[in-house]
Amino acid sequence: MTLVYLDNNATTMVAPEVVEAMLPYFSQNYANPSSIYDIAHNASEALKESREVMADFLGAANPKEIIFTSCGSESANMAIKGALEVNRNKKHIITTKIEHPCVLNLYKDLEKKGYRVSWIDVDKNGDLNISRLLEEVCSDTALVSVMMANNETGTIYPVDKISEAVKMQNPETKVFVDAVQAAGKIPINVKNTKIDMLGISGHKFHAPKGVGALYVKTGTMISPLIIGGHQERGKRAGTENVPYIVGMATAAKLAKDALEDELTRVKALRDKLEKGILSSIKNSVLNSKSKNRVPNTTNIGFQYIEGELILLHMNDEGICASSGSACTSGSLEPSHVLRAQGVPFTSLHGSIRFSLSRYTTEADVQYTLEKLPAIITKLAKISPFQKELAEIMG
Amino acid sequence: MTLVYLDNNATTMVAPEVVEAMLPYFSQNYANPSSIYDIAHNASEALKESREVMADFLGAANPKEIIFTSCGSESANMAIKGALEVNRNKKHIITTKIEHPCVLNLYKDLEKKGYRVSWIDVDKNGDLNISRLLEEVCSDTALVSVMMANNETGTIYPVDKISEAVKMQNPETKVFVDAVQAAGKIPINVKNTKIDMLGISGHKFHAPKGVGALYVKTGTMISPLIIGGHQERGKRAGTENVPYIVGMATAAKLAKDALEDELTRVKALRDKLEKGILSSIKNSVLNSKSKNRVPNTTNIGFQYIEGELILLHMNDEGICASSGSACTSGSLEPSHVLRAQGVPFTSLHGSIRFSLSRYTTEADVQYTLEKLPAIITKLAKISPFQKELAEIMG
Repeated sequence: MTLVYLDNNATTMVAPEVVEAMLPYFSQNYANPSSIYDIAHNASEALKESREVMADFLGAANPKEIIFTSCGSESANMAIKGALEVNRNKKHIITTKIEHPCVLNLYKDLEKKGYRVSWIDVDKNGDLNISRLLEEVCSDTALVSVMMANNETGTIYPVDKISEAVKMQNPETKVFVDAVQAAGKIPINVKNTKIDMLGISGHKFHAPKGVGALYVKTGTMISPLIIGGHQERGKRAGTENVPYIVGMATAAKLAKDALEDELTRVKALRDKLEKGILSSIKNSVLNSKSKNRVPNTTNIGFQYIEGELILLHMNDEGICASSGSACTSGSLEPSHVLRAQGVPFTSLHGSIRFSLSRYTTEADVQYTLEKLPAIITKLAKISPFQKELAEIMG
Repeated sequence: MTLVYLDNNATTMVAPEVVEAMLPYFSQNYANPSSIYDIAHNASEALKESREVMADFLGAANPKEIIFTSCGSESANMAIKGALEVNRNKKHIITTKIEHPCVLNLYKDLEKKGYRVSWIDVDKNGDLNISRLLEEVCSDTALVSVMMANNETGTIYPVDKISEAVKMQNPETKVFVDAVQAAGKIPINVKNTKIDMLGISGHKFHAPKGVGALYVKTGTMISPLIIGGHQERGKRAGTENVPYIVGMATAAKLAKDALEDELTRVKALRDKLEKGILSSIKNSVLNSKSKNRVPNTTNIGFQYIEGELILLHMNDEGICASSGSACTSGSLEPSHVLRAQGVPFTSLHGSIRFSLSRYTTEADVQYTLEKLPAIITKLAKISPFQKELAEIMG
């Protein structure tokens, strides 16, 4: 049976090399890395090496700046709550309207707890109004939080430039970057930036679900989210998940090596898919026209058609994609990201995200381009908007 | 080379059946369980089944009472912070002096934040002064927190009885039980108890490090520690770690089936080891004489000898054990648990924990009993306490 997996922003296949690398740490080198006997050294050495690899992956000056976590959401919660906790007299946060739910919902919660949050807009291409953001920075601003790449549209935000400009306005303001959707798709290099904290999640670049990392620049104080043992230099308690940490480091090395492929071959496949859909399906519109997009993502609206129906029909053909983020699927609310971009209701409910990976093939794209037009034609026939569709489809 | 692993309270070997069960969820059924296409159903079904298995393992009435976490420390932090957060007007906590560092350090942190903590003593056998605990319960008591079994000594605490008595005094007080060291060693059954929350960690019963669970009784409100997506019914954001969750459920089933073996064969091996050491090594003393101990653990003090040295010499013979908890190893502070029991300094610094598992064999115990006396004799010769040792050793 055909399986075309175009939902790599939701999660990715664990790379076979990653599984291979993890296996010895389950039933052989299983010792607690904090223990003092020889067999624990294998585990603690693996931890040390993995930390170095992750530091290199993110361009961190020092492996000590890497804290291993259990996921991107934990990284974000730890960074945000941890930085606010050590700076309790400041009560202002600046973020964007298009952050991932794990960041967005946390700020909504903080708003209820007395924080003032400035929500910065994006334009119809998905690009951020940076000067508006900078206008908001004041002496009370504890934190500025901007994602590096959006999960739904792939739009890239110039976090280096933003962090630089924020610090010019207020050197004490901390900058957190959610880089979950950037890792493995575009280079990340915190070196020589003013970014204080940056979070990533392993399962978005072919490591397993259940492991992440948080970069915390030397000198940036944060209080721990999970208090307990001395692990991660007192910043994150809990026996280290050695197999997954080794797996994530392996995935990071693979991703680094594959970055060229991502930026060329995968991008070409994405462009082919995008152009193919836009040219062959008359009611399709590109939702994010920003020039700065990660190479694997496209988000396309199919006017007057219900997105969930498209997905179900694609599923029948063995094609996996999504509308909005998997974290919000099940809810029928339209995407907060597309709403923030001002996508009109005519395509808001019929928007599909296609996200490729280095495992995506020419055949996958070809197959999707063959199957999708018929699906849209079929669904157009049962749409309640016949008059409007007739005008577009001709 | 010989390897005798007697440090199963630090961490355990992942059972081969657990690895086997996890493998399909890395590179085959890797979809995000929140996605709507067919291949995601395998993941969401696996999650559902695993939740049922874990509910059964803990005796929870409803699978919805199980929240998957990344470790025991997260379970404890989530339960404690989460329960206090929804009940902010109450500022009193009751706990014991012998909790695990992940719990202990959290309460120390909460003390700094304005909570009043009553620290309940244990006697020289490790048993808790329950009437003292109950005397402390007052209208301001938000939380009572008692571990089910101690990690260092194996002493079991009657958490069912305690929770019942606490609720008699103040029905609004919440009860959290750290059952990390009980799971897989003795039966856990929250049904018909007054326990509100109970945390466990997979890697203590042959699942991998990096996965845990928190039981939260229906009706018990807690606020989430990791805010974000809708996962775990809004109680714990982050894409679910499907492979490890499946692994933990598999480990729970195996542990349940092996419980009889644990309570008979493993207990007999532990008793043989304990009696063998105590009878063959003159300066050895049993640190916890409680009648209620988990079947796999013994903690023995070797008077006037340094524990770390014993461990290093045991390591030379391929025997793995520990002094205190792995989470505090590296620090030379004597165990807070043994200090709370009033273990005298003469054996406090020379106390070794031996913790067995269902993989421990008769030969492992035999080998340890053969090697250990010579190690202690050798170290006794270089001890600075020659006079005192001469009196004991004869």
